[in-house]
Amino acid sequence: MPARGKIPRPTIKRLSLYLRELEGRLTGGEHRINSRQLGKVLDLTDAQVRKDLAYFGQFGHPGIGYDVEELITALRRILGVDHRWRAVIVGAGNIGRALMSYGRLRRRGFDVVAIFDADPTLVGTRIAETTVQPVEQLAAVVRRSDARIGLIAVPAESAQAVADALMDAGVQGILNFAPARLTVAKDVAIVSVDLSVSLEQLAFSISLRDGLPGSTRADAGADTEPDDAR
Amino acid sequence: MPARGKIPRPTIKRLSLYLRELEGRLTGGEHRINSRQLGKVLDLTDAQVRKDLAYFGQFGHPGIGYDVEELITALRRILGVDHRWRAVIVGAGNIGRALMSYGRLRRRGFDVVAIFDADPTLVGTRIAETTVQPVEQLAAVVRRSDARIGLIAVPAESAQAVADALMDAGVQGILNFAPARLTVAKDVAIVSVDLSVSLEQLAFSISLRDGLPGSTRADAGADTEPDDAR
Repeated sequence: MPARGKIPRPTIKRLSLYLRELEGRLTGGEHRINSRQLGKVLDLTDAQVRKDLAYFGQFGHPGIGYDVEELITALRRILGVDHRWRAVIVGAGNIGRALMSYGRLRRRGFDVVAIFDADPTLVGTRIAETTVQPVEQLAAVVRRSDARIGLIAVPAESAQAVADALMDAGVQGILNFAPARLTVAKDVAIVSVDLSVSLEQLAFSISLRDGLPGSTRADAGADTEPDDAR
Repeated sequence: MPARGKIPRPTIKRLSLYLRELEGRLTGGEHRINSRQLGKVLDLTDAQVRKDLAYFGQFGHPGIGYDVEELITALRRILGVDHRWRAVIVGAGNIGRALMSYGRLRRRGFDVVAIFDADPTLVGTRIAETTVQPVEQLAAVVRRSDARIGLIAVPAESAQAVADALMDAGVQGILNFAPARLTVAKDVAIVSVDLSVSLEQLAFSISLRDGLPGSTRADAGADTEPDDAR
């Protein structure tokens, strides 16, 4: 465990993937797994798996492996998903509606307690059993519900104002779907989701396979790389 | 440039971010930038920026920096987005609808030419000026339109069958939104999007700041890390 360990983002992302895989195995009745098996399904080396986990302490036993249930409990605690999180969505357009109906969020411990929109024709409509509220109610609802996460699903030009309103209301983390780079306070966490970046990664992988003129490295095999291999 | 350079995924992702920043600067009338300036806005060191670009050749001039327009052209070529891509969406639920209306895809060079669903009550409805077609038409439409990318926005239990149908139809890349791990042919690229992973990263960042019991490393500062710093 590094003394002043800075934990790389790809490690954190992989913790989520380990957790999903372990939960699937536990459901399937498996109670023990080793780093080779865990790495194999995620296309990672066993050394990478052990290195990722070593940031957070000592898990498992050499030659025996990990107790699946123990490792699930540890990963949930590390990721902060051993308790539930309340979130609000701002923006009841297509992305907001998709998020509201995205069952996986609830299954993963995130409860969307409210959705807001500035458009009076959307206010009062229902999405997945939740009524769209006017954005003026944001501060009151966030405080009352103790929501700590805000999901921004508004157009780029309104995104910073919405982020400011969410922070004023006391939100501690923002998941931003708007195509805008947002400025947030130092004590607020932000993760931005840009689906066109995912598509560009896909285009790059296809170009590599094709050996198109667009690709200078048809043999590079970047598409088979785990997230942070080098 | 490494002899048998494998290009790390985070590098590819950052190329997209460099491209966006450069395009913004060009629009703003800037024609020259150095690696320090480019790194600063993305919270990366100038060395990281230079290392990322060095995978693909020699760009810019020491002490002078990069020609913004030249670097944009090079990055578009490297990413394979110097030409447009045709894509189809399978699944006309909330996620499919959100994708269909997501203007940024078109702006980034991806044209969604068709959307399909198996539900007869959705077939024939219109989303963003496109009519939902029956999934039975998938193969014919993909071949006729020469679509090379398929976006999967169906429930987990149908996702593999949809992936198989897309591959049979000749699609070369799949962007998967279904909560399922898919098996694809060796010559097909796949990128999976799981929004609950983004939320878990956010939860982890908030926990770090809070120093909650869930966080063992309140001082680790993982949330300020660029994607693959170590």
